[in-house]
Amino acid sequence: MTETYDDNNIFAKILRGEIPSTRVYEDAHVIAFMDVMPQGEGHTLVVPKAPSRNLLDAAPDTLGPLMAAVQKIAVAVKKAFAADGVTVMQFNETAAGQSVFHLHFHVIPRFEGVTLKPHSGKMEDPEVLSRNAQKIIAAL
Amino acid sequence: MTETYDDNNIFAKILRGEIPSTRVYEDAHVIAFMDVMPQGEGHTLVVPKAPSRNLLDAAPDTLGPLMAAVQKIAVAVKKAFAADGVTVMQFNETAAGQSVFHLHFHVIPRFEGVTLKPHSGKMEDPEVLSRNAQKIIAAL
Repeated sequence: MTETYDDNNIFAKILRGEIPSTRVYEDAHVIAFMDVMPQGEGHTLVVPKAPSRNLLDAAPDTLGPLMAAVQKIAVAVKKAFAADGVTVMQFNETAAGQSVFHLHFHVIPRFEGVTLKPHSGKMEDPEVLSRNAQKIIAAL
Repeated sequence: MTETYDDNNIFAKILRGEIPSTRVYEDAHVIAFMDVMPQGEGHTLVVPKAPSRNLLDAAPDTLGPLMAAVQKIAVAVKKAFAADGVTVMQFNETAAGQSVFHLHFHVIPRFEGVTLKPHSGKMEDPEVLSRNAQKIIAAL
């Protein structure tokens, strides 16, 4: 098992602006954008600008600013979607469900009685992502 | 929905030493101990000493030291159990699966082809927890 960082991963390309994303937040250390295959309405990804494969090899000083942004986004999505709760998940390596090998946190609004959808590969309508992003931006 | 911190929650009692736990790590800001109802072998909880209900109301300056400990524990459990990956999860409010209302991160070693068990309420044998804790302590 290799654990080196590959800077051709899709989030690295998003960070370099080579691939578009539906952005909701950016600061000096972090960007956040809509997951294109959401497990629930408002599923957002929070991604540090510094390269690391996942949490296992991240530079410790990236974690404070990253988690400050995760917290901001969690509060914002709960408000934006009038959610009952928020699930935060972070996967390390394929066995844990990681599919893009640049550190990222999933922030997912939750609603009583609604289970998460599988990360199925179904792409969400870009119009829906854009509308949801606007709700989050308004709540930030 | 109330969102105030109740200092009679079980993790507050563990932090005050009123209830035992199978501790693997402690520093000035954080403790980590074995989940008594593990979703997988080596399931560990990382808990800040500062009180907050969950991530939504946490003081931002608790997050850096907390995540540094989450990272340490993630690296240690992967090594301790020769795991293929590590899942990190953090739940905010009942709708997201939160059952103890003191901020905590789940850190769970993952193995190819092994799904997580539900958080079923089945208590693990204390001997098993103690043996697993020793493996993690040795890997830290």
